[in-house]
Parts: sequence; structure tokens; C-alpha cells
Amino acid sequence: MKRDELPRSGYLVNDSLTVECTLTVLKKLPDMVVVSAATEVPLPSSDLHRHLGELLQGRKGADVTFVLDSGDRYRAHKNILAARSPVFMAEFFGNMNERSSQTVSIGDMQAAVFKAMLHFIYTDMAPELDEEHDEPAAVVMAQHLLAAADRYGLDRLKLICEGKLSSNIDVETAATTLALAEQHNCSVLKNKCVDFVTGSPETLNAVLATDGYKHLVESCPLVLTELLKVAHGRRN
Amino acid sequence: MKRDELPRSGYLVNDSLTVECTLTVLKKLPDMVVVSAATEVPLPSSDLHRHLGELLQGRKGADVTFVLDSGDRYRAHKNILAARSPVFMAEFFGNMNERSSQTVSIGDMQAAVFKAMLHFIYTDMAPELDEEHDEPAAVVMAQHLLAAADRYGLDRLKLICEGKLSSNIDVETAATTLALAEQHNCSVLKNKCVDFVTGSPETLNAVLATDGYKHLVESCPLVLTELLKVAHGRRN
Repeated sequence: MKRDELPRSGYLVNDSLTVECTLTVLKKLPDMVVVSAATEVPLPSSDLHRHLGELLQGRKGADVTFVLDSGDRYRAHKNILAARSPVFMAEFFGNMNERSSQTVSIGDMQAAVFKAMLHFIYTDMAPELDEEHDEPAAVVMAQHLLAAADRYGLDRLKLICEGKLSSNIDVETAATTLALAEQHNCSVLKNKCVDFVTGSPETLNAVLATDGYKHLVESCPLVLTELLKVAHGRRN
Repeated sequence: MKRDELPRSGYLVNDSLTVECTLTVLKKLPDMVVVSAATEVPLPSSDLHRHLGELLQGRKGADVTFVLDSGDRYRAHKNILAARSPVFMAEFFGNMNERSSQTVSIGDMQAAVFKAMLHFIYTDMAPELDEEHDEPAAVVMAQHLLAAADRYGLDRLKLICEGKLSSNIDVETAATTLALAEQHNCSVLKNKCVDFVTGSPETLNAVLATDGYKHLVESCPLVLTELLKVAHGRRN
């Protein structure tokens, strides 16, 4: 629009012009990344995880069905499960010879947790832990996934969950996370929880009043002695 | 060692002390990468490609054997091949129903090239292209792998080969690479080859004398016209 058309356009109000902009913020870089201007051939980033994610989704060639307590069923591929988890390797290709079994029952695990674990096995990603709009849900998922990762020997997933829990220790989560850290041998996470709980008398009292603490008392009574020692040492 | 012990130690020669250092230069960062000092839980980088590489190596659950013209045999997994290549997807899970076939013959491809392609399918990596001690061999491998990637619809491998060839255009490689670029629809690479070949009369004459140029004449005669036009345009 030319400058002299502006006054007649109706867009000028009280001698001022309002411009509305829509900004699109890309949280991830697009898939195409130019490695070097010299080569001029753009190189897309690794797509192995995406391809395997599509294989899980499409279920082509799936040779095993997992049945959860809830009745939910998930189809998957034995070779990929075995490549990623020593537990599945032993189960499907070990001497126990469950190899021919087409259906495997999974007890004591929520369907959403098993689904997230399956997704991680195929893609090395756990988007459920990055739920920015519902951080408490993400922390609960991290607690469940930590236990699942430990059960199936998924070391990297376990470390990711430890990192997530480690940066989300508060009065509500501390006792439950401490119990988990104790049960699944996460020493760094355990120390961080102990430090937090014994940080101040107020924090300690608040944690003692949570449901998580009752669970801690029942499941890991020996940890209470450690807490006591650390708290006592701080007082002196 | 204390300062007053030094003169008697025998290490001082002509009043000077020589210190020998051994520097270890890590060409890659170690696998453990600390994401944030705040979490204190170190997070290892993605290990999906390593796990699948081990699956290829160990052949657990392999359900197809490829037989090359040379007689070399390679065992692999149909679901992973199909997840990565639309050609294998159609071959193993399409309507043509080769699904039940356990053995697939691969004609017109060197064993080393097929092996490198298989490795890339499982790991998204092509170390054969980074042979720093034998760059000409790496370029020849890139030429072969480009053709293989195009044949099996491995778009990312094709782009990696294009990038490699694109940064290795010289008198010896230009004509062969130009023929490849023409045959496999690599327009950026093709333009770079044409620019190089027509860059100077000396370069053009040197390229005309290579075996690669004879191959280009036989396989892609139409490209010669393009070369002629560009060279003519430059002269004017």
C-alpha cells in the first residue's frame, strides 16, 4: 500500500497503525539440515528411529502379541525387542525357548507404561516424559518407566527417567522417588532425594505427612535409618 | 619432586628440564555425555543404531538370506529391511507375496557394497565413506553405494553419497560421477560436475582423456550435448 493511500484506508486509528504478526516458533529444527555450504547437498538427519516407529505403528511382520492385565494388546517384533533388551533376548532367543510363543502376558504394568516402553524400544525416545502442559503426569510416568526400564534392562531409558525424577524432587515426589531409587539401585538419585528430604526441618515434616512417605516406610524401612543418620549429622 | 632435589636428580641438562607429554586426542566424544550439571545424572547418547548393528552381526532371529553373484551370503531380518526400504517392504510384505521366501538373489552388486548397504540399513552409518587413509577407495564406494541406495529407495544414504562425491570431484572422478548423477537423478551433483568439467579448457581436455569419459559417452550421450552448450556459453 502506498503511503498516501494509508489515511484513506481506515487502518489508521488515532494517527497510529497496528500491525499484527504471527510468529511460528519451531521447537525442533526441520529434518533437512545443511551440513556444509561447500557441498551444497543437504543431508537429512538420521531417520532410523522414525522408520522403526512406523514399523511399530504399522505392525508389518509382527510376530509376538503382549497382553496386559487391562486386556490391552500390543503387537511387536521379537528381533527388535531382543536387540534392545537383554531380558527379551533371553526370553525369545535363549535356552528357555519361549521362541515359538506368539503371546506373552505382562503382569503388574499399566498399559500406558508398557506402550511408552515399547515406543522407546523402537525409537529411543520417550515423549511422555516431556509433557510440558502436565508436569506431574510426566513425573509419575517417569517413576513407572524407571521400574519398567530396570525390569527389562533398558539402561538408557532408566537413566533418562533418573534424570527426569532428579530434576523434579519436591515435597510431593521425594518419598516415592526415594523408594524407587532404593529399589532400582539409582545411587545418584537416591542421594539427591536424601539431601532434599533432610534439607530443613520444615521439608522433613512436610515429606513425613505425604502418602509417598507411608509407601516408603512399608517398602524400604532400611532407608529410614539412613535418613535419620543424615538428619542427625546435619543438626550437629 | 621437591625443587632442591632437582639438581641432583640428573634430569637437569644444561640447566634445562625437558618434559615429555603424551596427548590423547579423542576424535569422537565418549559415549557418556552429561546433559546438565543440575541433574547430575549422566545421559548416554542414543544406542539404537548400536543395538541394531549387533543384531545384524549376531543374526538372532534372521529370516532371510541374500546370495550375491560372488557366492557371498548375508543373513538379515525382513522387518528391519522393510522398515528402511520401500523396495524391501514391497518385496517382503507386498501383494507379490515373496514373504515366504527365505533366500533372495542379488545380481549386479559387489559383495562389499551390499554389505555396506546392509550395515547402513541397520545403523544409519556408512563408515566405508570415511576411509581417511584411502580416499579414492571411499569415493569409488560412494559411487557404488549411490547406485545401490537409489535401487532400494534409501534416500538418506543416497544424499550422503551425493555429498561425498560432490566434495571429491576431480579430473579422475568427474566423468564417472557425472554419469552416475545423470542416471540416478542427482541434479545438484550433476550441476557441480558440469561446472567442474567446463571450468577451463585444460580441465576439459584432461577429463576427455579419462576412462570415465568413455563410460560417460556410452552410458549418457545426451549429457555430452549439455556439456557442449555450457562450454560454448562460457567461451562467449
